[in-house]
Amino acid sequence: MPHEQQETGSAEDRLIARYFRPLAKHPGAFALADDAAVIEPPAGCDIVLKTDGIIGGVHFFPDDPPDTVGKKALRVNLSDLAAKAARPLGFLLTLAIPKGIGEAWLLPFARGLGADAELFDCPLFGGDTDYTPGPISISIAAVGAVPHGRMLRRGGAQPGQRLVVTGTIGDAALGVVLRRDPVVAERWGLSPDQRKSLEQRYLVPEPRTAIAELLREHASAGMDVSDGLVGDLAKLCRVSGVTATIEAAQVPLSDGARAALAREPALIETILTGGDDYEVLASVAPDKLASLHDQASAKGVAITEIGVVSAGDTEPRVLDHHGQTLAFTRLSFSHF
Amino acid sequence: MPHEQQETGSAEDRLIARYFRPLAKHPGAFALADDAAVIEPPAGCDIVLKTDGIIGGVHFFPDDPPDTVGKKALRVNLSDLAAKAARPLGFLLTLAIPKGIGEAWLLPFARGLGADAELFDCPLFGGDTDYTPGPISISIAAVGAVPHGRMLRRGGAQPGQRLVVTGTIGDAALGVVLRRDPVVAERWGLSPDQRKSLEQRYLVPEPRTAIAELLREHASAGMDVSDGLVGDLAKLCRVSGVTATIEAAQVPLSDGARAALAREPALIETILTGGDDYEVLASVAPDKLASLHDQASAKGVAITEIGVVSAGDTEPRVLDHHGQTLAFTRLSFSHF
Repeated sequence: MPHEQQETGSAEDRLIARYFRPLAKHPGAFALADDAAVIEPPAGCDIVLKTDGIIGGVHFFPDDPPDTVGKKALRVNLSDLAAKAARPLGFLLTLAIPKGIGEAWLLPFARGLGADAELFDCPLFGGDTDYTPGPISISIAAVGAVPHGRMLRRGGAQPGQRLVVTGTIGDAALGVVLRRDPVVAERWGLSPDQRKSLEQRYLVPEPRTAIAELLREHASAGMDVSDGLVGDLAKLCRVSGVTATIEAAQVPLSDGARAALAREPALIETILTGGDDYEVLASVAPDKLASLHDQASAKGVAITEIGVVSAGDTEPRVLDHHGQTLAFTRLSFSHF
Repeated sequence: MPHEQQETGSAEDRLIARYFRPLAKHPGAFALADDAAVIEPPAGCDIVLKTDGIIGGVHFFPDDPPDTVGKKALRVNLSDLAAKAARPLGFLLTLAIPKGIGEAWLLPFARGLGADAELFDCPLFGGDTDYTPGPISISIAAVGAVPHGRMLRRGGAQPGQRLVVTGTIGDAALGVVLRRDPVVAERWGLSPDQRKSLEQRYLVPEPRTAIAELLREHASAGMDVSDGLVGDLAKLCRVSGVTATIEAAQVPLSDGARAALAREPALIETILTGGDDYEVLASVAPDKLASLHDQASAKGVAITEIGVVSAGDTEPRVLDHHGQTLAFTRLSFSHF
């Protein structure tokens, strides 16, 4: 057995060395040559911990480009850190792969993951790679930091505050519909760019890491919109002990979503409850709205006011442009 | 939709509320009602991070008792923290379950996991539960603490130091053989208790959390023996830039392993390379051996000297009772 580290050990060791060691740039990851990683917590900071997994055939299509799968696996976790006003420190990876998966998948997967680890300054701390008789399964545990006592919580929305969201809502849910049934693109009257943009939003979400600090300074409550805006708003309200009213017409839409909705008004349910948005929903005092809007805009993140928090314990209401309450068959998406 | 938190939300929300919220006793887990957990790092401590997953049909038998699966999922990670001289702070759980898995499995799984979370003072910080078309897959990310700069590393073994292991080696590997082919129990001349004990060691490993602090005070290098003693020793030597010699006859064996080995001497390979031991291998200066041995013994953990570290970069050697080098077809276990 030769002694070059990258060529010794088990097949798992070689796989880790080839594809994942280059991502382990934090000195406390010891180039993945130890049992665990160690980090010195940033002074005065709390540690924020989040795990989210994605599974082939459930959270991504088995034929999704492997680089986007790698990006998505990390980004769904970074989105939570951002919504908690935390900056990323690094992540742990558990990868379970079927026997047939080889370099053709692993190399672009690791490249996509590695590119995002660089982009978001979130190195690989360590991981575990195993064979599975099931589909490709990727679980990431993300570790972040936030000044002591300042993690943005779900419970903290107060009557009179305004609800805002980042970016646009509904794109990824429409992207899934397009992916499953490409002919709807024509029915929805989408341009090729609009169609591609909706599909891309499903493949590669955009975590709002850039405004984590701004959220900490401006918002009273926040969460990541991943299971559908309406259902996630209901969760935020429940934990905060409040209710809310949002106006469907104020919810920010992309060009593609707006085009599709114009042709097919019933899509409002898919847009507002479909999930996979990975945008931030936050509750903000009225006098802080303008500052948040302007400073976020300077960082390239749109902030849109969609409604208001009020006292009460009823489910949040979504109003249409006549002021009537919209009823949905379900509030949020569940894989169960 | 009623407003009792435990009864609202998606099927995933209800599943989490029923089975896993009781395990989330750390205040920073917010009873699993937020997107992420937050912890204040213990003063003067580094944070140690480890993830390890187990998959049905790969790391455990699909018909293993669910409570032992829950215990094993946590313990394989706690074993790493102990070997790094860290104490547990808590853990994140990613659980992927096939659609047929219901309360009959989840309830005892969560009970087993919860019992160990209590026993090892390692609460659930948060998690993610998903449907999978594959087998039950459990990934845990364990978070520990160690005084700043004092994590026990693999690299640190020096010539002249002695190699020690905790507990006994080979039991779990023999337990797997028994589980797959129960008739060997008779061939090995095992008593019912010996057989049960070997099988139990596979089902529920014993992380050496009790001596994490003692290891920090006494050892120069350490690692968790999970992939087979010989292969793991080779890794420790490689990272430390040393070699080593161990004597097979000194490796501590349980009564059952000793009985089996007496009948079937070739089992020495299974014992020394089979894996799943979840014991600690450490390199200790000779003048610290007695203190480590005595203090660990007072905590119920046996420490046995099995060999010596020496200068060089060749593979570690395992000597038989004639002083001859034992040759193995493989040094450690790999699922690949």
